[in-house]
Amino acid sequence: MSCSFGENIKLTVFGQSHSQSIGCVLDGVPAGEKIDVEKLQKFMSRRAPGQNAVSTPRKEKDEVHFISGMLDSRTVGAPICAVINNTNTKSQDYDKLKLFPRPGHADYTAFVKHGGMNDARGGGNFSGRMTASLCAAGGILLQILEKRGINIGAHIYSVCDVYDEKINPVTGSMIMLKQAENKSFPVISETSGEEMRRKILEAKEQGDSLGGTIECVITGIPAGIGDPIFDGIENKIAAAAFAIPAVKGIEFGAGFASSFLKGSENNDSFIKENGTVKTTTNNHGGILGGITSGMPVIFRLAVKPTPSVMKEQYTLNLESGEQEKLVIGGRHDPCIVQRAVPVVQAAAALAVADFVLK
Amino acid sequence: MSCSFGENIKLTVFGQSHSQSIGCVLDGVPAGEKIDVEKLQKFMSRRAPGQNAVSTPRKEKDEVHFISGMLDSRTVGAPICAVINNTNTKSQDYDKLKLFPRPGHADYTAFVKHGGMNDARGGGNFSGRMTASLCAAGGILLQILEKRGINIGAHIYSVCDVYDEKINPVTGSMIMLKQAENKSFPVISETSGEEMRRKILEAKEQGDSLGGTIECVITGIPAGIGDPIFDGIENKIAAAAFAIPAVKGIEFGAGFASSFLKGSENNDSFIKENGTVKTTTNNHGGILGGITSGMPVIFRLAVKPTPSVMKEQYTLNLESGEQEKLVIGGRHDPCIVQRAVPVVQAAAALAVADFVLK
Amino acid sequence: MSCSFGENIKLTVFGQSHSQSIGCVLDGVPAGEKIDVEKLQKFMSRRAPGQNAVSTPRKEKDEVHFISGMLDSRTVGAPICAVINNTNTKSQDYDKLKLFPRPGHADYTAFVKHGGMNDARGGGNFSGRMTASLCAAGGILLQILEKRGINIGAHIYSVCDVYDEKINPVTGSMIMLKQAENKSFPVISETSGEEMRRKILEAKEQGDSLGGTIECVITGIPAGIGDPIFDGIENKIAAAAFAIPAVKGIEFGAGFASSFLKGSENNDSFIKENGTVKTTTNNHGGILGGITSGMPVIFRLAVKPTPSVMKEQYTLNLESGEQEKLVIGGRHDPCIVQRAVPVVQAAAALAVADFVLK
Amino acid sequence: MSCSFGENIKLTVFGQSHSQSIGCVLDGVPAGEKIDVEKLQKFMSRRAPGQNAVSTPRKEKDEVHFISGMLDSRTVGAPICAVINNTNTKSQDYDKLKLFPRPGHADYTAFVKHGGMNDARGGGNFSGRMTASLCAAGGILLQILEKRGINIGAHIYSVCDVYDEKINPVTGSMIMLKQAENKSFPVISETSGEEMRRKILEAKEQGDSLGGTIECVITGIPAGIGDPIFDGIENKIAAAAFAIPAVKGIEFGAGFASSFLKGSENNDSFIKENGTVKTTTNNHGGILGGITSGMPVIFRLAVKPTPSVMKEQYTLNLESGEQEKLVIGGRHDPCIVQRAVPVVQAAAALAVADFVLK
Repeated sequence: MSCSFGENIKLTVFGQSHSQSIGCVLDGVPAGEKIDVEKLQKFMSRRAPGQNAVSTPRKEKDEVHFISGMLDSRTVGAPICAVINNTNTKSQDYDKLKLFPRPGHADYTAFVKHGGMNDARGGGNFSGRMTASLCAAGGILLQILEKRGINIGAHIYSVCDVYDEKINPVTGSMIMLKQAENKSFPVISETSGEEMRRKILEAKEQGDSLGGTIECVITGIPAGIGDPIFDGIENKIAAAAFAIPAVKGIEFGAGFASSFLKGSENNDSFIKENGTVKTTTNNHGGILGGITSGMPVIFRLAVKPTPSVMKEQYTLNLESGEQEKLVIGGRHDPCIVQRAVPVVQAAAALAVADFVLK
Repeated sequence: MSCSFGENIKLTVFGQSHSQSIGCVLDGVPAGEKIDVEKLQKFMSRRAPGQNAVSTPRKEKDEVHFISGMLDSRTVGAPICAVINNTNTKSQDYDKLKLFPRPGHADYTAFVKHGGMNDARGGGNFSGRMTASLCAAGGILLQILEKRGINIGAHIYSVCDVYDEKINPVTGSMIMLKQAENKSFPVISETSGEEMRRKILEAKEQGDSLGGTIECVITGIPAGIGDPIFDGIENKIAAAAFAIPAVKGIEFGAGFASSFLKGSENNDSFIKENGTVKTTTNNHGGILGGITSGMPVIFRLAVKPTPSVMKEQYTLNLESGEQEKLVIGGRHDPCIVQRAVPVVQAAAALAVADFVLK
Repeated sequence: MSCSFGENIKLTVFGQSHSQSIGCVLDGVPAGEKIDVEKLQKFMSRRAPGQNAVSTPRKEKDEVHFISGMLDSRTVGAPICAVINNTNTKSQDYDKLKLFPRPGHADYTAFVKHGGMNDARGGGNFSGRMTASLCAAGGILLQILEKRGINIGAHIYSVCDVYDEKINPVTGSMIMLKQAENKSFPVISETSGEEMRRKILEAKEQGDSLGGTIECVITGIPAGIGDPIFDGIENKIAAAAFAIPAVKGIEFGAGFASSFLKGSENNDSFIKENGTVKTTTNNHGGILGGITSGMPVIFRLAVKPTPSVMKEQYTLNLESGEQEKLVIGGRHDPCIVQRAVPVVQAAAALAVADFVLK
Repeated sequence: MSCSFGENIKLTVFGQSHSQSIGCVLDGVPAGEKIDVEKLQKFMSRRAPGQNAVSTPRKEKDEVHFISGMLDSRTVGAPICAVINNTNTKSQDYDKLKLFPRPGHADYTAFVKHGGMNDARGGGNFSGRMTASLCAAGGILLQILEKRGINIGAHIYSVCDVYDEKINPVTGSMIMLKQAENKSFPVISETSGEEMRRKILEAKEQGDSLGGTIECVITGIPAGIGDPIFDGIENKIAAAAFAIPAVKGIEFGAGFASSFLKGSENNDSFIKENGTVKTTTNNHGGILGGITSGMPVIFRLAVKPTPSVMKEQYTLNLESGEQEKLVIGGRHDPCIVQRAVPVVQAAAALAVADFVLK
């Protein structure tokens, strides 16, 4: 079942790129939670298109309407249905589009799966636009988690080969991350950020695109949350993270780098500080045996370069079976890493809320 | 719910390191499937301890007994319960053990989660031993998938900084992988394998351990399998893979490397070959929009170094709150990457079977 | 999780009696299914209020808007979101209402569950109005099932002690049921219907209400569908049926009457007719061991009398702890059995679709 | 998925009538719960065959072995696997059996579902024997719930047309029910019990069988548990109850009788007694809007007469397509109502535990 996530806090998303609306149903949220709608809208706008030169010029306000589950900005214990209307859609001759699958996109696989009966306009329900629904749900949960002392921050970790300043894995550096969030290009180091933007604009001029990585940190999550084997924090965060279209990898704590370490280097020693059990380092990324240790939960995602490039490409004409030249028009992002940062926070919030809001 | 996985083919695992038995219930397997029990047992033995110098000397036969669901080596459409008895257990004074959590292990997080009421003997249900249950289920599914033309192979991709020979992502190199499987140290290149083993023995002499990475390939899976957003192949494989205790990262296709590429480099062009739609390269790892493209599905896992090292470590005495010296005795693996290879195949089989054996 | 149902065809409903809208998300419906929207609307109107003298005079058109999942009246394989706006709502002083729980309603239990933070206007998400969402989803599925030869019919089996004409359990009497459906008061026998209506109007005049039973028949469902123990047809239909607010009982085939029979009387003999295995009688209601036998699936539901009666009642003032007189105003149904008939068909469609549209 | 039940406390059952063992995995039970194994065994024996003249003479001890999840009779937070060996099995020529489906049994439907590849020995996984697994799990949960003040009792409500003494729906009459439990024939009134047994023996002499009804009461469950629509107490108890092979109906509170009442008669008035909100009557069976009201939860099940009767019957020879005489040998129950009483308690415990042991 593709559109639902979670056992205790259950999210169901719906919509296609060019359907009347997209949105979500969020079930299981306790009654009586005050939601700051303005703050939510601000969170939505971090993902929304049309913000700056390194994103698509297409503008879409992504205004969230609650059609159920809320009364006077307060949850009532009934499923919350949030709707975002699609206002800026330009549907082209989509039947023709189906015959020329764009490389790196889901056009071909969607076509095969649905025997050509899918809604191909703007990528249909495979569009990155669907992440707006994720953000609406995640934005609500972020507010609820924050009130319980759980903060989720994220920043661009790298764009191509340019890296942002490192966070401190033992403290989680949440203040720095929250500052980064307020920027339209969410990095800790402005110097790195400028270099990243320069590279993106360079790629844009070439009609090309760039990928990168995003780092996400969760602080304040108590020790003892999660389960071994199939229901660990890592399983659930990973399952949520791969809902983000361009994500191709995830690692927790030291992640792939731990494969180069010796056990004696990778193990984090336990200590007690001010009555709290901690570890002196945090290679385990706050998770041991699928369960939180009380240390910051840290993970990084690989984001592939936007497949919609302006450069001439070749694709298959599914009808004739011949390769043909393909030039993608439209208004595309030369890099989506910056817009994906709030989506990663939203996905993390979904996974965490499912464990802690039982 | 920690012990179950899957919607159509549902696995439930049970057992602790020192309980009478471990095992699994596998539900949803069609009736009438002939299972080659000897072949299954051979698969089990690839994971079993006590095989060679680079693994733990502890011997355990890991013999699988079917106590339900089978009749004359054939499935009957009822849940299959497979039981493996724990024969070689040495329970020490486990109450004391609980007070000294081993670094890098789940001792502390399990203690917190269960208020100290967990079974700490040998790591309880957090032990790597639980992967034998995964292998019993996965081994059955691998046979069933193979009959449907779906093959799942895997090899050690790296141990520390030593890499195995590369597979061809476009063909999947299944023959090479199946040859690697027959080795007690599953690599493609014997030269690389020797260097890896040398490094492991070196670490072992130092009372230390090494990590590495594993690459897994699935061929023969038809195009059009999976769903976007939450129920894609990536979400499900990732959710299964993080059930393996030491796994700290996963990437599909070009994975983290795709973050360094431009869109024009990362995109895979569609072509038609012998009537079949393919891509000329396979950076997408056989998955676009969560759905299979018909190309080999490829993923790699990061395996952290075994946390049980002989070297002197420091840990917290949970009672006194003081740091104390810890020397771990027992019979541990200086590297578990080689033993984890069949477990990765089993996890992949679980995820794939859940999609294709509906 | 209260708002979702199904594994393969997953329904999520949302809305409160006085929220902006109510509706549902239906996921898993195959792409390319043509939906006759006019037919769906006609189905909706069978449940809608304001139809005749034996129902509430409150009028509500219950127009269904598809905001996702459909293109040119065809499903596209993406979740279908159907929205029904609440147009005829009269919100009273609902904070006061919360203190005086109506007998037989969920006012008190909702209050306790949500610590008084629930939306009490018009019964909130406990209102019978929520069954409109069920009908929207069920109406879609009924059309899809019908194309596959599966028909679901239902009629009023009884109102108080007046019974409708019996169906033939061996054939299912689908033609008679489909004729009954076209009536605003869905009975087979007009004589019985008149007597029922007379009794309802009599109760209405007394400011009282009546209950009854509904019988539902599913024909054309092939043998071999379902599973023993927890995933049988009975388990699933029952789980769906109790989603209808006033339902207090369900029985399959001979049901409670079978408790009076001897085994030799209750057993249905197998025969072969025109190459098809059948049974000569159908006390088993088309289900043996949770699995369909190919005979019509038959079940009956007990519907309690509408709790909103005009007669003076006593309730508890939750604030003062004293019993107080309660007179319920508003526009209520003296009997909801007739309006519940399409809801029962919808619930049955949900359960059946989950099994057959895999 | 047929063998699993529950979201928070998840039960998975396995086994066939003649497999080596049957059993269950119970996951989600908190760590540190002391289980009285002797008490559990006594509960098991209430269901076990061979107890008295009104049941089958076949003897089976149904001894429960815990092979995981327990340490020193205490739960450890890991899945509990309980195994019961099949000791008294007489496998006949089962391939022939498949061709002559017994009326009222699942032989035919199982055959169709599994294309004849099912295990037909003794009814396979459709056998009433599977309820021993339910009892093992339910027996554990009953003990855990009891410690939390939640008691679940049940009695034979009727056998054919002989009724037991009524319980008081407002108090739940738990003391009387617990006394009934200690009898091998669990009724409140010995006079009724004798009459029931007389009727059963009469039917037995005729080579026939009888059905009946069972009433179950749950006291001590707090108000505010459950959810409206799909996740109510009624939906879940019904879904669990239909796992019991011979059950053909369920009703809550006044149930089908409420269909004869007027709203003013059926509504239960709220009052406050000793600081607790109660209702003066309990037609709602402790559930309003799917949520507990704090009053006893009451439901009744219809149990069909045992289909295995000694009397000559006719069935279809699936090979020849001809009707043939069938005489069922073996050792069967002339009535299973008395043995089903603990199974009903077990099913209720499963449903309740899933809500309250989160």
